[in-house]
Amino acid sequence: MKIIRSSPAMTAWSETLRLQGVTIGFVPTMGALHEGHRSLIRAARLRCDALAVSIFVNPTQFGPREDLAKYPRPIARDRALCRTEGVDVCFEPTVEVMYPSGFQTTVTVPTVAHRWEGEARPHHFSGVATVVTKLFGMVRPHIAFFGQKDFQQSALVQQLVKDLNLGVDIVVRPTVREPDGLAMSSRNIYLSREERMRAVTLYKGLRAGAEAIRSGVTSGKAVQAAMAEVMKREPSLKTEYLAVCDPRTLDPLPTVGGKVVLLGAVRIGSVRLIDNLLVSPSR
Amino acid sequence: MKIIRSSPAMTAWSETLRLQGVTIGFVPTMGALHEGHRSLIRAARLRCDALAVSIFVNPTQFGPREDLAKYPRPIARDRALCRTEGVDVCFEPTVEVMYPSGFQTTVTVPTVAHRWEGEARPHHFSGVATVVTKLFGMVRPHIAFFGQKDFQQSALVQQLVKDLNLGVDIVVRPTVREPDGLAMSSRNIYLSREERMRAVTLYKGLRAGAEAIRSGVTSGKAVQAAMAEVMKREPSLKTEYLAVCDPRTLDPLPTVGGKVVLLGAVRIGSVRLIDNLLVSPSR
Repeated sequence: MKIIRSSPAMTAWSETLRLQGVTIGFVPTMGALHEGHRSLIRAARLRCDALAVSIFVNPTQFGPREDLAKYPRPIARDRALCRTEGVDVCFEPTVEVMYPSGFQTTVTVPTVAHRWEGEARPHHFSGVATVVTKLFGMVRPHIAFFGQKDFQQSALVQQLVKDLNLGVDIVVRPTVREPDGLAMSSRNIYLSREERMRAVTLYKGLRAGAEAIRSGVTSGKAVQAAMAEVMKREPSLKTEYLAVCDPRTLDPLPTVGGKVVLLGAVRIGSVRLIDNLLVSPSR
Repeated sequence: MKIIRSSPAMTAWSETLRLQGVTIGFVPTMGALHEGHRSLIRAARLRCDALAVSIFVNPTQFGPREDLAKYPRPIARDRALCRTEGVDVCFEPTVEVMYPSGFQTTVTVPTVAHRWEGEARPHHFSGVATVVTKLFGMVRPHIAFFGQKDFQQSALVQQLVKDLNLGVDIVVRPTVREPDGLAMSSRNIYLSREERMRAVTLYKGLRAGAEAIRSGVTSGKAVQAAMAEVMKREPSLKTEYLAVCDPRTLDPLPTVGGKVVLLGAVRIGSVRLIDNLLVSPSR
């Protein structure tokens, strides 16, 4: 496996392969790789001839009071996982490579970016949209793989690619979960043992919403109430939002007609966790 | 010459050629082609194996009280010029192709975009940055050609390409002028005969600034005064700004040290004209 740090070297690798008709897959990550990332990498490995994974903890998508400094960076373990999974290139740009002096351009995707996670994290999604545009420019993949866990992020990337004609196919893969149902996340390591046990309540809440829908409940409010009911049982989890939304526009839905996404965000102590479920009414 | 209207067809043309190692040149325009465009097209034709010219009057770079509706669209003449100059593809996307329903992403390049022209035309440069990013995505050129006449635009595009790693080489070609010195512009046709005669005063003002610099004047204010002095002689031209700037940052310069750009914008009746000169102090 090649480790590449510079943008020109990354692009040169890709352009050489493109000229040979090779299909290039790409999994952008912030490192601290877990089973969710592994499943993206495996999907990409199966579908593409050549595979690049980027590891870059992007400062512009963290708020000033967020966890940028303490975000885990187990680079040796991350590389080992990539090597094991047959990754061809591990792209590890530095902050200076990504944002050299004078850097100033931003990409914004307003409607996807300004609610739910966007409301809680005001500059998060323009940071994501900008870094993804840059990474696609550097890596020039044919196909890029994102996890459903960050549902809004995957919706944003799909809109971004369409709007700016970036010419990259986006594949969104299902969330990988711990045996009890907790969504895999690099931030789970922040949880104390006790918090970890309680954290699964978010998933249970979303499940209750999904069951309500499958049992025929169509009122968005009632579905939300079903989720909130479960959350109440674990008052140490502070709900930031629980929402029943259109999976494409992320608009909250007063009535469940077709496929919906249930979105949730909670705080446990100082840790913030998100999760979501895609649900189709049974009919 | 091929006329292409759809984005997938445009990209397919380009990708096929790229796989053959062909160098693709691109001249983005709003049509109403004049000798300035012709010189860009010729430069591109000499340097590239395949050449695409786009004609798209981009609504998002016009203000609500600007000349979008009356902007000239002599498409038959434009195509004839392209044909004569050996253009391979004339790309003519419609507004629907460029901004389909649901479109929402914007690209902004703050420091270049918010002064001089950006101050007079608040959303102009984010419209330009977004459409250029899209056109580069659709056309996938190796090299794109811009005119120095729109100096800020060319500075913005260079910053944009660097910041978003778009991987397109940008060539900026000198302004082409009428025999009396007026910069070629698609908007010159708005001028009455009398206005047309007076319009050249903008160029004369910039020339006076250049001569002052070449004769040893180093105070930015004094250079500006030399330009303003000339403009005073033609009071029907309303000066919007006359500035002595760093060609890279577009910051106004209190003292002329090295190369500078003289920027000017005026109104004559209802027509707005801009021009600029790059000047190096003689030494």
